Amino acid sequence: MSASPVLPSFDPESPVFRAHEGGKLGVHATQPLRDRADLALLYTPGVAEVSLAIAADPSLSARYTARANTVAVISDGTAVLGLGDIGPLAAMPVMEGKAVLFKHFAGIDAVPVVMETGTVEELVEAIARIAPSYGGINLEDISAPRCFAIEEQLRDRLDIPVFHDDQHGTAIVVLAGLYNAVRVLGRRLEDLRVVVAGAGAAGVAVTRLLQRAGVRDVVVCDSRGVIAPSRPDLAEHKQRLAVSTNPRGVTGSLAAALAGADCYIGVSGGTVPEEQVATMAPGGIVFALANPQPEVHPDVAHRHAAIVATGRSDFPNQINNVLAFPGIFRGALDAGAPKVTEAMKLAAARAIADLVTDPTPERIVPSVFDAGVADAVAEAVRRLASRPGAGVGRALT
Amino acid sequence: MSASPVLPSFDPESPVFRAHEGGKLGVHATQPLRDRADLALLYTPGVAEVSLAIAADPSLSARYTARANTVAVISDGTAVLGLGDIGPLAAMPVMEGKAVLFKHFAGIDAVPVVMETGTVEELVEAIARIAPSYGGINLEDISAPRCFAIEEQLRDRLDIPVFHDDQHGTAIVVLAGLYNAVRVLGRRLEDLRVVVAGAGAAGVAVTRLLQRAGVRDVVVCDSRGVIAPSRPDLAEHKQRLAVSTNPRGVTGSLAAALAGADCYIGVSGGTVPEEQVATMAPGGIVFALANPQPEVHPDVAHRHAAIVATGRSDFPNQINNVLAFPGIFRGALDAGAPKVTEAMKLAAARAIADLVTDPTPERIVPSVFDAGVADAVAEAVRRLASRPGAGVGRALT
Repeated sequence: MSASPVLPSFDPESPVFRAHEGGKLGVHATQPLRDRADLALLYTPGVAEVSLAIAADPSLSARYTARANTVAVISDGTAVLGLGDIGPLAAMPVMEGKAVLFKHFAGIDAVPVVMETGTVEELVEAIARIAPSYGGINLEDISAPRCFAIEEQLRDRLDIPVFHDDQHGTAIVVLAGLYNAVRVLGRRLEDLRVVVAGAGAAGVAVTRLLQRAGVRDVVVCDSRGVIAPSRPDLAEHKQRLAVSTNPRGVTGSLAAALAGADCYIGVSGGTVPEEQVATMAPGGIVFALANPQPEVHPDVAHRHAAIVATGRSDFPNQINNVLAFPGIFRGALDAGAPKVTEAMKLAAARAIADLVTDPTPERIVPSVFDAGVADAVAEAVRRLASRPGAGVGRALT
Repeated sequence: MSASPVLPSFDPESPVFRAHEGGKLGVHATQPLRDRADLALLYTPGVAEVSLAIAADPSLSARYTARANTVAVISDGTAVLGLGDIGPLAAMPVMEGKAVLFKHFAGIDAVPVVMETGTVEELVEAIARIAPSYGGINLEDISAPRCFAIEEQLRDRLDIPVFHDDQHGTAIVVLAGLYNAVRVLGRRLEDLRVVVAGAGAAGVAVTRLLQRAGVRDVVVCDSRGVIAPSRPDLAEHKQRLAVSTNPRGVTGSLAAALAGADCYIGVSGGTVPEEQVATMAPGGIVFALANPQPEVHPDVAHRHAAIVATGRSDFPNQINNVLAFPGIFRGALDAGAPKVTEAMKLAAARAIADLVTDPTPERIVPSVFDAGVADAVAEAVRRLASRPGAGVGRALT
């Protein structure tokens, strides 16, 4: 889902700049303020009663403030789209766009929070301090490997859902697509040889979720080749991958991993030459998710694979996070779930896949604008949240 | 402007709780999202162009994101109304109400941010880290004396307006009322003996702004009496007050300060017995601003003073911050002013006073719902911001 950098162009008359004039978000009151009587209800002195009631019973916060329907879209601007570390101000248009999607697809009031970057500890401290403002936290475009520790520490500290969409949103939609791909092909996840190209936020999360879903043979590659214990150069999160993946002990380049593979999942950018794609097992699966340039052009991929998906809307099978995150948060907020669990992610992927009643090679995932996607995902999340021990009763306080 | 604690009452069918159901704020998109073409403009891939343009020229952030019209209403919930330290969750209804006022009176998109409290340093760090999200910061209901250092440090670090409304909003409206009170009485600020009862956020700021406006003789009292250098128990901010006020060296209780005073300004709660009010100089001024119980009931005050104001809407002369803060921020945001300066506060007070074309003892300030108040204040702030050296050209980056 990464994008290649494009050169800056600034034409204030172009459609994209015109659509951004003044920003894309506004705040509005949900109650009328017409006169002194309204003022006395919405502000002093009336509001004091509500504040005192919440002070006495914090669970009333979810009912009498907007918090339970508010999600912070938080970024430090260090890994924005495929543009890299462009900083918080330049990240804001992306965060506003994400907030627009939250509202449109799930009715969630999302507010962008862009932060000066810093150490993992500094970011965690700042986010945890402002967390009482929100019903959930969507982390966005934070560079790996910091994003892993930041999410993990926030999940431990907070009792509201914390969800790094670049990791888990991508992983859920990839798995949804894969569920239907194997259905179309009459195969099983357990039998696939999968290559994940990319060991950043998306690559790590895709790998973990596929393994949870039953995939046994995953080989992960970064820009230097297959991640294996023999590599001396691995950062901690890659060392963990080296141990938990690659059961056949493949070494070498991406080309070595692709030979005989059933499924390629590209989440890293770069390009894969056609000769290497041709070495994959016949009748396989290619998910080339880099934007705007897929690692393998779909026309090329189709010469060697049975099912092809990209991150682009102008080809069939668009793997787009917007199929997942609005429903994930909708369900978690509705249920008052304190976490988005692994079981919820698997159920969300299954719900997305099941929306395609009759999958074909050209249609393994729903379209972004299909009605009911967020509802189905939310329902799957809510159902799990209401299981005993899954967190209900630990609603927002 | 402080309120006496009231007992918690929770009746979900009462008007105030019904008005708060689901909270008082929502977020909306300002651009339509109808189809894939809109999605490609508002989110990927189109948004990347806007992000790159801002990365190349940060000043474009003010034009192409909502930030330049967005103000954070930030509190740690340690001094909420007169309710005290009730924490961030219970503070939220007040912050949402404030955001409603920002929108209604000045068209500003305000977002509440309630924080876990901490040291001055911890709060400053967290607020500075999220500051790139906003065009201005309104601090609210943070306990004294921490609020002074927090505001001062943020003003130094950030190049957007930081304004603690409990201090400066109150001070501006008090001064506006006083401008018209002396006009009605045919007197001068320079000749008044003023007693300020309360040495918290409001008391300190009122005292400083009155002095800047020309008042020479201010005696400040806290709950233990007159603040004077002889007091051994003074916190640092009160030590500074002891040096800069009280030119006649008054000592003792509030009663001692009131004897012969021309003007009483109560910003602390508590009550002043009628006998003490009776010792003030005849034909004077009483601003009893505690809510909901003024320090002196207006009927009592009128037996001894010529002009009486309160914080309540059901008596004449309501001293209400909402006369000031919407216009202050509107003007500062419009001008891209990096600070709200002392000159701007004085000009705002004068603008508010001047909206009352023919002041009388019963009408020294405009009504909250009078048309044009925020516009007039904003214009006064903008005019000062555009003076050479006042910060124009240092617009939001």
